[in-house]
Amino acid sequence: MEAESSRIAGLDGLRSDARRNRERILVAARAVFAEHGIDAPMATVARRAGVGVATLYRRFPTRDALVRAAFAQQMETCARVLAEALADPDPWRGFQRLVETACELQREERGFPAAFVAAFPDSTAEHAQSRQRAERDLMTLVRRAQAAGALRADFHPSDLAVALLSHCGLVTALPQDRAASRRLVAYLLQSFRAESANGPLPPPSALSLRNLPLTTEVPHKTAHPRA
Amino acid sequence: MEAESSRIAGLDGLRSDARRNRERILVAARAVFAEHGIDAPMATVARRAGVGVATLYRRFPTRDALVRAAFAQQMETCARVLAEALADPDPWRGFQRLVETACELQREERGFPAAFVAAFPDSTAEHAQSRQRAERDLMTLVRRAQAAGALRADFHPSDLAVALLSHCGLVTALPQDRAASRRLVAYLLQSFRAESANGPLPPPSALSLRNLPLTTEVPHKTAHPRA
Repeated sequence: MEAESSRIAGLDGLRSDARRNRERILVAARAVFAEHGIDAPMATVARRAGVGVATLYRRFPTRDALVRAAFAQQMETCARVLAEALADPDPWRGFQRLVETACELQREERGFPAAFVAAFPDSTAEHAQSRQRAERDLMTLVRRAQAAGALRADFHPSDLAVALLSHCGLVTALPQDRAASRRLVAYLLQSFRAESANGPLPPPSALSLRNLPLTTEVPHKTAHPRA
Repeated sequence: MEAESSRIAGLDGLRSDARRNRERILVAARAVFAEHGIDAPMATVARRAGVGVATLYRRFPTRDALVRAAFAQQMETCARVLAEALADPDPWRGFQRLVETACELQREERGFPAAFVAAFPDSTAEHAQSRQRAERDLMTLVRRAQAAGALRADFHPSDLAVALLSHCGLVTALPQDRAASRRLVAYLLQSFRAESANGPLPPPSALSLRNLPLTTEVPHKTAHPRA
């Protein structure tokens, strides 16, 4: 089947052109959404991808379709990372692995959502379901590590968002400095350990996975008119 | 003398108009530099301040003069905060006060330099001197808290920059969420305590006060053409 289709050289060339084009649009969309928020003009995405606005709309008729496609792969990665963390028989190691992997993803791929669940509306039932599952899994991971006495009892699930958003800010400021990123992650993980608790913490944030900004620059997004 | 000059109503009105104008330009400059880096177009600053480009150049003939004026007050604040921290007879409390006050300034005034010393070139001997003094004072603060056995021995001066840049990223993402900011500061300070050290840290960053980005958005600054 593979061999047969590759023998039809013309069609194959067209297909891989189309694929490359689509990939280029998705890469551009992630970069633009990361910089300007998901309300960034479609025209900006088209320009960055080097395709016409008409081509962009032909492939992705709505902004929503583009957003979903752009982050589909990352949603999958997040689900995999969470599943692996939960599968770890050592509750602390599972929790640590989640934080380290999420930060590694932020470091290696700028434009990766600031947190594990993107802030765009639940456009599909499928997406709402994935998010609910992610929330439940994160909660399990936290409770399990606390029950084992490894994660401090006053750790609040919103602290995960605090950690990921701070780290995202650091790698945005210093995209080349892996040492700084690793150092921050190590400090945070040590401060999350039960035996490191050396005093009470101020009250936790009201942040939840539901109201996280997608990127560190979302506050400016209203400054960009829609295309 | 005060009374006499205020009796010359016309002159006084002119003077306070000019003062207000100057203040408006400086506020706009800090906001624009914070968003786009110090290479942001002068025209953007003028537009934000609601004055003409000619007026802006009449008051600040060079970008450098504007940058220095915009941050003069903050440099002064930094110097005062550092002096107060050094004056604290308890080395840990001095160190903690520095971190907390710097983060509070980042939280209360967006556009405050990401770190204590701005990244613009040493345009004047005076500025170079202030920076050297700040570097020396920070080092003294760190060494003193380590000598007292309160700050962990593997704390590296660049970790201060890591902490301030992460916190800056967090308050940029969540400008309204003071709880998140306080929570991060508390975790970081606890992880810096000698008794919290529960394992080795990865090698420190090569960051120094000399090569800090001024804002979290400096990496994008080349996207903004100069005026």
